[in-house]
Amino acid sequence: MESAAETPGRGRLAEPDLPGRPCSIARALDLIGEKWALLAIREISFGNRRFNEIARNTGAPRDRLAARLHGLVDAGILERREYQSSPPRAEYHLTAAGRDLTPVLQALVAWGDRWVSGEPPATLMHGDHELDPVRICRRCGTDAATPASVRVNSPGWDIHGPVTAGD
Amino acid sequence: MESAAETPGRGRLAEPDLPGRPCSIARALDLIGEKWALLAIREISFGNRRFNEIARNTGAPRDRLAARLHGLVDAGILERREYQSSPPRAEYHLTAAGRDLTPVLQALVAWGDRWVSGEPPATLMHGDHELDPVRICRRCGTDAATPASVRVNSPGWDIHGPVTAGD
Repeated sequence: MESAAETPGRGRLAEPDLPGRPCSIARALDLIGEKWALLAIREISFGNRRFNEIARNTGAPRDRLAARLHGLVDAGILERREYQSSPPRAEYHLTAAGRDLTPVLQALVAWGDRWVSGEPPATLMHGDHELDPVRICRRCGTDAATPASVRVNSPGWDIHGPVTAGD
Repeated sequence: MESAAETPGRGRLAEPDLPGRPCSIARALDLIGEKWALLAIREISFGNRRFNEIARNTGAPRDRLAARLHGLVDAGILERREYQSSPPRAEYHLTAAGRDLTPVLQALVAWGDRWVSGEPPATLMHGDHELDPVRICRRCGTDAATPASVRVNSPGWDIHGPVTAGD
């Protein structure tokens, strides 16, 4: 299958019109920046694809979860597949864009384990061993987490904010 | 300075009581899972520390931003430092817990650049070159983004949900 949600860099997800600094973080959060969205994606990545399973395992209020799943399907992050027509019952699957959120979820796990959880409630495995992730820069082979500077590419903006005439 | 927010693994941030699966993602999102929170943290990491700067550069409604900054200070992710007493004026600084959110922000940038932004609105630099991050597993040296399995450590839960008697 070839769709907008399967091909990064070509048929992208719709770019929203947002206030403030032009920013990929803001655009990502506009689609997934609500906790029930990411928790639903967590459950679906665990193979729990049905509404009742997702509701039970996230603790999300059913009406908010329904709205969130609908929005994620519209955005191209989830795909809804009917597995029974009468009464209609559906399962939710991750698109390529949804599967590509794994590093976001893994970064949140790592931060929550380090700063919030008394004991890690889950362990990410990598084959037969515990995942021990580190981000490196492919260009130089050193740790990517060291403070990186930012070059702002948005016309009319610099690192401090909107650039006004005379600046 | 030694405080709860400076020492991962010992004096951790307060662990919230949440519905659903015990999960570090849910605990992290309980603290930072609202888009204005992460966008405020983005601006503060850029050195834009004052309320008016953060409001302008994020586009956040002022009342919601004020509530969010207050919550992030309470959680130990931001520190509020008064730089003028009359009238009172403050700047916001990241604690160690806040600085440690960098990988979360970088993962969101990468996803937003790949899937949403037509052109990347900013480029992360790593010294003199563009940051080209890849996550590897320190244990085996291979890509950490390949599907990792999850071992659930929470009593009463497995990967599918709550474990009931007789399962």
